[in-house]
Amino acid sequence: MDMLPVIAELSQKTPSKILLVVLDGVGGLPQQHGGPTELAAAHTPNLDALAKQSALGLLTPVYPGLAPGSGPGHLSLFGYDPFQYLVGRGALSAIGIGADFQDGDVGVRGNFATLDAQGLVVDRRAGRPSDAENVRVVSKLKAAISEIEGVRVSFYTESEHRFVVILRGAGLGEKVSDTDPQKTGVAPLPSHPHNAADAASAKTARVLNALTARIREVLHDEPQINGALFRGISEKPRFPSMAEVYKVRAACVASYPMYKGVASLVGMDVLPVEGVEDAPQGKVKALQAHWEQYDFFYLHFKKTDSTGEDGNFQEKAHKVELFDQLLPELLALKPDVLAITGDHSTPSVLKAHSWHPVPLLLHAPFLRNDPAQRFTEDEASKGSLGHLRGVELMPLLLAHAGKLQKYGA
Amino acid sequence: MDMLPVIAELSQKTPSKILLVVLDGVGGLPQQHGGPTELAAAHTPNLDALAKQSALGLLTPVYPGLAPGSGPGHLSLFGYDPFQYLVGRGALSAIGIGADFQDGDVGVRGNFATLDAQGLVVDRRAGRPSDAENVRVVSKLKAAISEIEGVRVSFYTESEHRFVVILRGAGLGEKVSDTDPQKTGVAPLPSHPHNAADAASAKTARVLNALTARIREVLHDEPQINGALFRGISEKPRFPSMAEVYKVRAACVASYPMYKGVASLVGMDVLPVEGVEDAPQGKVKALQAHWEQYDFFYLHFKKTDSTGEDGNFQEKAHKVELFDQLLPELLALKPDVLAITGDHSTPSVLKAHSWHPVPLLLHAPFLRNDPAQRFTEDEASKGSLGHLRGVELMPLLLAHAGKLQKYGA
Repeated sequence: MDMLPVIAELSQKTPSKILLVVLDGVGGLPQQHGGPTELAAAHTPNLDALAKQSALGLLTPVYPGLAPGSGPGHLSLFGYDPFQYLVGRGALSAIGIGADFQDGDVGVRGNFATLDAQGLVVDRRAGRPSDAENVRVVSKLKAAISEIEGVRVSFYTESEHRFVVILRGAGLGEKVSDTDPQKTGVAPLPSHPHNAADAASAKTARVLNALTARIREVLHDEPQINGALFRGISEKPRFPSMAEVYKVRAACVASYPMYKGVASLVGMDVLPVEGVEDAPQGKVKALQAHWEQYDFFYLHFKKTDSTGEDGNFQEKAHKVELFDQLLPELLALKPDVLAITGDHSTPSVLKAHSWHPVPLLLHAPFLRNDPAQRFTEDEASKGSLGHLRGVELMPLLLAHAGKLQKYGA
Repeated sequence: MDMLPVIAELSQKTPSKILLVVLDGVGGLPQQHGGPTELAAAHTPNLDALAKQSALGLLTPVYPGLAPGSGPGHLSLFGYDPFQYLVGRGALSAIGIGADFQDGDVGVRGNFATLDAQGLVVDRRAGRPSDAENVRVVSKLKAAISEIEGVRVSFYTESEHRFVVILRGAGLGEKVSDTDPQKTGVAPLPSHPHNAADAASAKTARVLNALTARIREVLHDEPQINGALFRGISEKPRFPSMAEVYKVRAACVASYPMYKGVASLVGMDVLPVEGVEDAPQGKVKALQAHWEQYDFFYLHFKKTDSTGEDGNFQEKAHKVELFDQLLPELLALKPDVLAITGDHSTPSVLKAHSWHPVPLLLHAPFLRNDPAQRFTEDEASKGSLGHLRGVELMPLLLAHAGKLQKYGA
């Protein structure tokens, strides 16, 4: 059930401020049964002190057993049920690479492919080229193709064989079939609108079919990357904004395109952050500079996830320690409600996103007593907040911030 | 929300093996406040040792407060939401008694009734006859009635006044009304198709109405069992198979018809089991003999439920001890993922299925630490898996077995 209409009815504007800290992929696993997780191994005096004055719980980001990608993981934390608020693959890729992707645009996931002389697919991934090769070929396409049937066509490198096309023009639809045949030995499929009477989608299909032909012409002398297959064709979704649903002015403090993109999908203002990569000091400065202007802040740290994906237990624990050192500056801002959690687990033993629940720390008025001594998975599993789903977090934060009225009389 | 389409998109074939042990009705209650449950009273050295290396949690099979029957309890454990995947009462009875019930057949729950000279219902249960009386009357019906309007009619004893009719023939439908008026002093109702234009269901209704008349003729000289009332008229449901949804080759190791029937509804192969009643050694042999051929095994033990229904606390605890003695042979098979749980609770103090959550033990790679020392309800309620719903179990098992890909990017 989509709870946003219910929450929208109950939410009210107040001056209280909520700070939601997402330590990407923060949940972990012990290296052997009975050992500490990355969080438990980290030396975190500030988090420990905070945990003793907070309530803890475990959050299943999307569904038991599901290891969520960043898109559904974050949408859940923002209160948008990812099974209700769908983001097409093309749109998610466009958002993930930070493309210029606006309302009405259509995002398309492209695969570079190798075709034979008859135009049949020999390799659906064109031998998995390097990112540099991808950039070279994308430049060639940019130089040769900028418009088809009055529709502006923009190309972006994603990685290896993956690229993104953004179509911009009046009257485009997204209800069209993929051109990727999902197998070799056949020609790329023509794209068709799902419904012939849907003129907007018919236009998108025509443009994609013309684009397939144009790309073959432009790349005809390339030995390996001489074709393109399209899938996940999707418009930028239009979700109700956090301002509409929660009556908050919401700001995003993040460094990587995917997180800024998902935040902007739910209507957050994306604040400029100085510095490279995770830029922790730049993020603190951005928060400080805009603290008065907003009443909901989403603060994202990426490196707990990347070190987990690298399988580097010690380094992931170290990234937690770096966050711990920042914590006093965050507390100095005196958020009325502070939540610290993750969008999913990324145990370094798995080197990947996992399905394990993430620990949640809630520092706010009106908490029950809680036995937690530290911010760890073990402590969280005994926490007074119990086990929650990701989408249940926002109503809880709003309630503790005094932003939710009574439901029913 | 039905999660099976989502899971079907994410599941992948791997060589890992999952063993799901269902101790029927395993959840219990203390005989007095503060006392041990049946599980806690049992001497279970093998389960205790396993619990220390596992993660525990509590599973609410269907919904808080609902005491599920075997059908919905098991469908949930298999990941099929029983509110979405409905099994009609007639179909469930046909499955429960192990009738020959095939795709396209229509199963009907019959009640033997007593009618007066005017054909009005005097007793909707014909004085609750013994099973032997039921068998005698069913034999009489079998001898006299085998076909109506080209439709094969088969009779089966269920128990007391309950019997099952299976209709087999081309072009039968299930969308028809019951003939049971649910009160006395009136005649049995004629069955009608819900929609007059539904020719298949109209045929079923005609057959049932003719059958009602034929049964009266055949039983006209019986003093008490001289009529029949039909309800729960339902085709064998066609559910997506576990092979389609989870990409596993799934096998059922069970002794009783109901469990084999529900397993076959979700496409499991039902393995032959030597021995009578619960046949524990026969089940272990069946597992051993087919271990290489399958990658998902459902292993069912019945006696924890039957002893609970008998109200025999000691005997239920003893059945747990018998399972404990089998455990080393199951562990010797080295399943990658082993789950031990129940389809519902059957506390001996209640002598019936109950709504209490069942304990869940998960022995698998990639577990968080867990304080459990034993496999009991109390330990499970403090377990690191938290509280889950029955339908959430399968995605979790698949995830731990490496059979679920990431959800979204």
